[in-house]
Order: sequence, then structure tokens, then C-alpha cells
Amino acid sequence: MSKKRVVIAGMGFGGLRAAKALSGSDFELIMIDRNNYHLFQPLLYQVATAGLEQEAIAYPLRGLTRRWPGSSFLLAEISGIDLEGKNVLTDAGPVPYDYLVIAAGSRTNFFGMESVGAHSFDLKRLDQAEDLRNHILLSFEHASREADPVRKAALLTFVIVGGGPTGVEFAGALRELIVHVLSKDHPEVSADETRIILVEAADSLLTAMPINLRQYACQKLHAMGVEVLLESRVVGATAESVHLHGGTVLSSHTLIWSAGVSAATLAGHLEGVERAAGGRIVVQPDLSIKEHPEVFVVGDIACTLKDGMPLPMMAPVAIQQGSYAARMICAREQGRSLPPFHYFDKGSMATIGRSSAVATAADFTVRGYIAWIAWLLLHLYYLIGFRNRLVVMMNWTYAYWFQERQVRLITSKKRRAASVL
Amino acid sequence: MSKKRVVIAGMGFGGLRAAKALSGSDFELIMIDRNNYHLFQPLLYQVATAGLEQEAIAYPLRGLTRRWPGSSFLLAEISGIDLEGKNVLTDAGPVPYDYLVIAAGSRTNFFGMESVGAHSFDLKRLDQAEDLRNHILLSFEHASREADPVRKAALLTFVIVGGGPTGVEFAGALRELIVHVLSKDHPEVSADETRIILVEAADSLLTAMPINLRQYACQKLHAMGVEVLLESRVVGATAESVHLHGGTVLSSHTLIWSAGVSAATLAGHLEGVERAAGGRIVVQPDLSIKEHPEVFVVGDIACTLKDGMPLPMMAPVAIQQGSYAARMICAREQGRSLPPFHYFDKGSMATIGRSSAVATAADFTVRGYIAWIAWLLLHLYYLIGFRNRLVVMMNWTYAYWFQERQVRLITSKKRRAASVL
Repeated sequence: MSKKRVVIAGMGFGGLRAAKALSGSDFELIMIDRNNYHLFQPLLYQVATAGLEQEAIAYPLRGLTRRWPGSSFLLAEISGIDLEGKNVLTDAGPVPYDYLVIAAGSRTNFFGMESVGAHSFDLKRLDQAEDLRNHILLSFEHASREADPVRKAALLTFVIVGGGPTGVEFAGALRELIVHVLSKDHPEVSADETRIILVEAADSLLTAMPINLRQYACQKLHAMGVEVLLESRVVGATAESVHLHGGTVLSSHTLIWSAGVSAATLAGHLEGVERAAGGRIVVQPDLSIKEHPEVFVVGDIACTLKDGMPLPMMAPVAIQQGSYAARMICAREQGRSLPPFHYFDKGSMATIGRSSAVATAADFTVRGYIAWIAWLLLHLYYLIGFRNRLVVMMNWTYAYWFQERQVRLITSKKRRAASVL
Repeated sequence: MSKKRVVIAGMGFGGLRAAKALSGSDFELIMIDRNNYHLFQPLLYQVATAGLEQEAIAYPLRGLTRRWPGSSFLLAEISGIDLEGKNVLTDAGPVPYDYLVIAAGSRTNFFGMESVGAHSFDLKRLDQAEDLRNHILLSFEHASREADPVRKAALLTFVIVGGGPTGVEFAGALRELIVHVLSKDHPEVSADETRIILVEAADSLLTAMPINLRQYACQKLHAMGVEVLLESRVVGATAESVHLHGGTVLSSHTLIWSAGVSAATLAGHLEGVERAAGGRIVVQPDLSIKEHPEVFVVGDIACTLKDGMPLPMMAPVAIQQGSYAARMICAREQGRSLPPFHYFDKGSMATIGRSSAVATAADFTVRGYIAWIAWLLLHLYYLIGFRNRLVVMMNWTYAYWFQERQVRLITSKKRRAASVL
């Protein structure tokens, strides 16, 4: 009798963990992704700020299939799922499954604002991070030979939308890039001429964190020279300006959007499946889809409730769900059942700058140097591949000692998506 | 009195060496390049074969201007030179000079064969190396799910044109990538199903080397599984085939062209300047242009004769000429003269594969392991930047021990230039 087949659609944190958990079991395992690598998204902002080379945060998926007998990888774009026929539909043909783990992740949500989508950068993909790095470096190149002071100021103004961990980390890293590297690279540009504006709709940054950490993050960013605009909303953008609710217009050639995500488009292509806010797929307590006990949904694309609230769209949730889905598949095969999925909140953290971070775990909070070290170690731990860990550690050490970032290469002067500059 | 200004047009090996030699002197130094980095071209083929990340062989030029007082960098495309008005014309405006070093390098020469230009990869730029890597990896992804055996074979056939060091090194590295990595990554593809065909018009490879080394290289490549076609010329190409003189057609989706270079287009934009074969600028014995003792031409774009023959277009020539031009500029300022430029041939080398290379210096030849170690050490020595040396050494060590190449990422499925796949 041939082995039963598990197909994993999407190899982000959730899919990767499910695959790893199933890799030793008696299933045929097929992993599908549109990229041939697993991307460590939490460090994308460091690629965008010239701190890491893009290769350091990506791990080739075929490096895993080589180690896992019975597993294989398919590089393909998934267009839909035939739930009745048990087929994943891809541009490389249909892939039949016995069990399916949908782990397609999320995409940036511009809340219907087309002008913002057309004129902003977001940080979901590797090429976007490289584009953003090129754009920031090119803005400095242009600013350093710009005679018009108004245009120069706009080239040197960077607007970041969204005060969650990504926005906070990016703002801090960009400020350090400018102060320690770019203003020294460009004698014609002083760090005081540059502006980094972090725009947040709520009344504080890092709203998921305790109040003392929110205040610390805000003060720290302020001390570093980042302007924080709270209770402000972006309502539109052009290539050279950002428009706020209330009529304020910021002259800026660079808009970075980290203010919202919604489920990957695949969620919308599933017929007869209930969806929640942000297009996320509503799942049963065991993460399966109603009437399809062989289909599990994990990570950002799944809407799981805890105390009546949807779980946040972040890596730890995806990892725990991926692991649970793998155990459920094994249990189903053996005719067993498992208790409903329960998310164990290990806490969260965000780094602000050199020697400075905030972290919370249970009722315990920590900030400053200790939190920063913890952040570094945890991110190294979660990276996959010995080589990637080594390269990242080397880069961090180098940056720490020399306050230098060597990856400041403009590899292309063209944006791959919409054009901004 | 203000300092006199030296402008260096192009920051390859020749320009970089000239700039370095002048960095301590009493000149204002302006370096111009279309990229914001110096590229170590001899290792581009390792980027294309997934052995090195692209950042490891590029060094940010502003890292140099920070260390060199009185120097500055301009990111610009040079469109021409006003020799009478002493102005370099760029897309960022004209740049006046007192002395000029033209070091614009070379471009690939397809000898007028448009179909080859449109359907081949060449290895001059960083993005081309990344494109070629993506294309090779993608060819294996497509081959591993291709049902048609004829199409599968074409996807797995790689034609390399030009039996000089670049062609030989690329052929060897590609073969190792396929045998040690890609055929293990793709269980559906055996290394025996792949073909690497190295096409050379002359009757041997590495024609600049002594006969015993030529034979060794040819035997070694053959033993590795590379097919060598001598006395063969490519006369045309389509996206899926390569046409040889005499009518032979090779079914192949990948054509790599390393069979010729000519001077950079800038050479053609200089009025009243004599040009030699390949469009190279004819220079005086002191590397200046006739009637323009303030303009020096170095590297691939210059045509310098030795014993009546033009010097080869390679890094050692450019480096020695860059150094000479800097000394000449200082001598001119002091009203002194220097003996004519004399190229000191330190020899040449090419690596074929793991533990295997050929090298020649004066009348001395060496091959095998010793030559390979010498090749590694010399390339590390000529790389600039401590960090780059460390990263490259780490990658080489890793590849040597684990026979693994971790940079096998498909970062884009689109070719930036003409489309092949």
C-alpha cells in the first residue's frame, strides 16, 4: 500500500514547522512554495537597512528535502484548491493530496488606498527589501548632489507607517544607518537634515506591549532622532508626498508601509469556506476546515480565536499551529483525537537600536541591554542553517564594533514594482 | 591656490589602483562610476554558480572616500568627454578636470551576432551573475518536472562559449555545482542527464598558457564530465538552441558567452581619438592620449602594445597601468618625466575545479593542488575589504568541507535583460 500524501502549501514559519514535524513520519510529504527558499521575515528590515545580505536570511528548501527521506519540493504558484477532488491547483499542474496544510501566509493590506499601494514599499519579500535598500541609498546619492533645498529635504525624509514591531525596528535601524554610515559616506548630507517620521494611528507604539515598554520605546526612538506621530493616519500618497488625515502633507520620496496585513489571496479562492476579518480563513478548534477534516489551516492565513479575539498574525502563532497540524494529521491517521489548539503566548519583543530593545514574557517585562541581547540570541536561534547563523552573527559583530554596514550596494536603480523615485 | 583636480572615470581594477595611488597626494580626487561599488569581476562566475553571495565580491566606493581625505565619489553614467573643455559629461552634469584617468573597461563583444546577444548570458555585471544563477537553478526546477525527454535534455544542456580562463573556470564550477549539489537537490535529475559543452574557436583551451597546461586543463575538464568542442564557432542562437558553424545545432536553453570583449562604449564617444581593434583607445607610451598629456587611459579600454602586440584585456594590466598613470600625473605636476609604461607579466592562472588549477609565472608552470591553493590565496589577496575576504574564505571552506553551496536561491524568475527561458 502506498503512503498517504501530505501537501504543505506555503513554506513560511507555519509550513516549515509542520513539514519538519512530519519529516520523520510515514507520509509522503510534498512542500509547495513560489520561492525555492524559506524566508526569515523578521530580519527583512535589516536587509533593507544594509545590515545583512539577502542570502543570510533565506534557506534553500531543497536543502531540507535532501535530509528528509520521502519528502519533495515543488516550485509553483498555487492558484486554488479543489477541496472536493482533493487537489492543489498550481501552475505546474494539480497536486493531489490526502492531507493538506494551508500555510500561505499574508500580504500587505493597504486598506483600499491605491495611491499608497502604488507609492510605498512594504517588507514581505526578499526583492522588496533589496529594492528598499537600493532606494534609500539612491536617495542619498541624489540628495548629495541636489541643489534645490526643498527637493533635497524631501529626498531625505522617510515616512514609516505602522508603530508595531516592524515599524519600530525599521525606524531604529534606518536612523542608525543614517547617523553611523550614510551621513559619513555623504559629506554633503548631515544627519540633522534627514527626517524619519513614524506614523501610528493608535495613541502609542507597540500596542500589544505593557505601558512601560511602550513609553520606553517611544522615548528611546525620540532620543535617537525619530519623530513619532501618534493618532495620525495616512490617507494617500504620491511619488513625492504622503498625505495624512486632517490635511497635513509630508514631502517625502520614501514611504514604508507596515500598518496592516491581510490573508494571502489564496484564502479568497476557496469556495464555500467561511472567512473572517482580513480575509482570514475561519478554522475549527483543531485548525481544520469545517467538513474537511483532512485540510488544516495554519499561520497568518488562519483565523483562530483566543478569548473571543483572533490570534495575532505573527511567527510564534504560525510555528505552534504548524506543529499542532502535524500532530493532528498523525492523530487522524491513528483514529485518535487531540485537545483543541491552544496558543501558548511566550511573549514578544522588539529591538529599537544598538543595545536597546523591549521584551515581555508572561507578566515579566525587560528593556534595554538585556532585552537586546535576548533579542539577538532568539533571532539567531530561530534562523535555520548553521551557515546563515554564522553570517548573521558575523555581520552583527562587525556592525557593533565598527558601526559600519558593508552591504550598502545599489544593485539596481530600477524598482521592480511601482516606481517611486 | 586651490588643489588641482584628478577625475577617474570608472572604478574597476585600473581606476581603483590609480585612485589609491593618488589618495595620499595633494590632488582633489573625484571618482565616477555607474555603480556605487567596485566589483571583483574574476569571481563573478562563482556568484553565477551559487558559490558566493553577490555582496561578497563588491566593495562600496564610499567606504574609500571616507578613508581618503580630499576624495569624493559621484554615482553617474558617463556619456562623453569634452577633451578641449576638460569636462567629463555625465547624467549628473559636467565634471571639470585638470587630469583625467579614463578607466571605463570593456563590454562583451558578440561580433555583431544579434541573436547571440539576445539569447546569451555574459558575466560582466553583478546583476547578470545573479540572473544566470537564477536561470540555472530554474532550469533544474523545470527539468525536474518536465515529462518530455527532449525538452528536459535541452533544459539540462549548458553551452559555454570561449575557452579562456572565464569559460574554463565557469565550466568547472558549473559541473561541480551540478554533480555535488543540484543532482542531489533534484532526485528526478541525474548528473549523467546533464551536458556542459565548452566551445572554443582555437585548437586548444587557455591559448595564452604553455602547451602542457592547456592539455592538463582539457584532460581535467574531460574527466570531470565537461565536453570540449575545439575549433568550433557559434554563429547564432535562439532561446532554445545554439547554432555552430558547419550546421550543427545544439538544443540548449542556456548559452553563456565569454568569447570576446571590446572597449566600453565611451571609447567611441571621444572625438578625434585614434582607436585600434575592438574599439580600444590608442595611447602614447606614457598612456596619455596624443595632444592631451593630461588625459590617461588605462585597462581594457586602452590599447597598449608590447612587442607589437596589444596587451591582453585583464586585471593585472589594468592594475599596473592605473598605478603608472597615477605616477605620471604626479610627475607631470613636478615637470618630470617617467620611462614609458612597461607591463611586467607576473603570469596567469585558472582554476578548473576542486584542488585543481593551472598557473604560469615566467618560465615556471604549476598545476593541480599547489596551483589551486595559489589561486585561492591570490584571489583572497586581491579582494578588497577585510569583511569580503572573510566571507569568501568562509564560503570556500564551507564548500570544500560540505561540498554544498548555500546561495542557491532563485531571487527572481525574470531576466533583467533579454528573455531566454
